[in-house]
Amino acid sequence: MARILITSGPTRQYIDPVRFLSNASSGRMGAALATAALRAGHEVLIVSGPVEIAYPREACVVPVMTTAEMLAEAERLFPTCDGVIGVAAPCDYRPCEVSPHKLSKTGKRLVLSFVETPDIIATLGLSKRPDQWVVGFALETDDPRLRAVRKMNAKNCDMLVLNGPSVINSPVAEVEILRRPDVTVAKLCGSKRVLGRKIFQIIEKTLILPTP
Amino acid sequence: MARILITSGPTRQYIDPVRFLSNASSGRMGAALATAALRAGHEVLIVSGPVEIAYPREACVVPVMTTAEMLAEAERLFPTCDGVIGVAAPCDYRPCEVSPHKLSKTGKRLVLSFVETPDIIATLGLSKRPDQWVVGFALETDDPRLRAVRKMNAKNCDMLVLNGPSVINSPVAEVEILRRPDVTVAKLCGSKRVLGRKIFQIIEKTLILPTP
Repeated sequence: MARILITSGPTRQYIDPVRFLSNASSGRMGAALATAALRAGHEVLIVSGPVEIAYPREACVVPVMTTAEMLAEAERLFPTCDGVIGVAAPCDYRPCEVSPHKLSKTGKRLVLSFVETPDIIATLGLSKRPDQWVVGFALETDDPRLRAVRKMNAKNCDMLVLNGPSVINSPVAEVEILRRPDVTVAKLCGSKRVLGRKIFQIIEKTLILPTP
Repeated sequence: MARILITSGPTRQYIDPVRFLSNASSGRMGAALATAALRAGHEVLIVSGPVEIAYPREACVVPVMTTAEMLAEAERLFPTCDGVIGVAAPCDYRPCEVSPHKLSKTGKRLVLSFVETPDIIATLGLSKRPDQWVVGFALETDDPRLRAVRKMNAKNCDMLVLNGPSVINSPVAEVEILRRPDVTVAKLCGSKRVLGRKIFQIIEKTLILPTP
C-alpha cells in the first residue's frame, strides 16, 4: 500500500475581493485518480483548489485557494508520501498588487502586472527523495509533445500525462502518457472516470509496485 | 402571469485558451429566484454564465460564457419579457488582447491591459419600455449603500438588491432592498433559497402585481 498525494482542481489569484484569475479545471480527473487509487487499497491525500465536485469520502482533502497555499500544503504533506500525482491546474500568475477594495469602473483601461507563481510539481520533483515518485500533468496548445517532454525533464517527473485544452472541465479527455527521457507509454481516450482508472493502473504498475 | 428574464452566474473573460478573469458567483441566488418565480406561476428565462448548480427544469436556460454574449442574449430576450432580474455577476473587464496560444512562463512579468465590458443591467434599464421593470443586484465593499443608490439611479433600475462580498459562492446572504430614489424596502438575511423566495415576493408585490 502506498500513501499518495494528489494535487487537484484550479487555484485562484484574486485581483480584488471579488475578481480573480483562474481556469476551468473541475477536479474531475483528480477525483477519478483518487477513486482508482483508493479502490486499489492505497491511502490518498488530496490538496484541492475550489471545486464543485465531491471527492471520495475515504480521501483526506485539504482545501486551498491560491497557488502559494497549494504549494505550502503539498510541501508539508509530500515528505510523508510515497509519491505525488500533480493533476491540479494551479494559476501560474498572480497580480503584483491585490486591491483591498472592489475595483470600481472608471471608464479607463485597467493595466495589471502579474508575476509567475512557483511551480508546485517542479518544486516537489526537484526535492524528492530517491524512493519517491512524481507524476505531472501538462496541458499544451502548441508543440504539445515537445513542450511536455521538456517539462517532464525540467521538473524531474518520473511520468507525465499530456492533454490538450479541450480536456478542461470536460467529462472526456484524450491523453498521452510519457516517461523519462521521452518515451510514449500509452495513448488513451475516454471518460475521465475510465481514464483516471487506466492512468492510475499505469502509475501503479510502473512506479508503485516495483518499489520494495 | 409574468414572463421574467433572469441573468445569473458569472461570466468569464479569457486571456488565453486556458486562463480567464472571473468571480466566484455560483448561480445559487439566480436558481432560488427562478424557483420562487416558477412556483408563483410565472414564466422564467435564464441567461446564465458557466455554473455547476442545476436550474429548475421548468426554466428556459440560455448558457453563455462572456459578458458580451450575456448582453447579446439578454438584449434579444428582454423585449419579449415583462421584467428582468439581473443577479448575474458579469465580468466587468476583458483583456484588450486574447492570446490564441497558452501563454508560456518566461520568468518575466506579464502586463495585461483590460477594458471595461458593457453594463448589462444599465443597457436594459436605460432602454426599457414604460411597462417593463428592472431589478439590479449590487455587491459593494466600500460605502455600500451610497454606491448602490447611485447605481440604481444611473442604471434606471426600479429596485436594487445590495449585498456584501461575503455573499459570493456562499449558501447564505444578508441583503438590503432599495427602491428609487433611495428608500430601503427591506433588510433580509438567511439561506439563498429562503432569501430568493422573500426577494421574489417583494418584486412580485411591488413590480409585477400592480401592473395591469
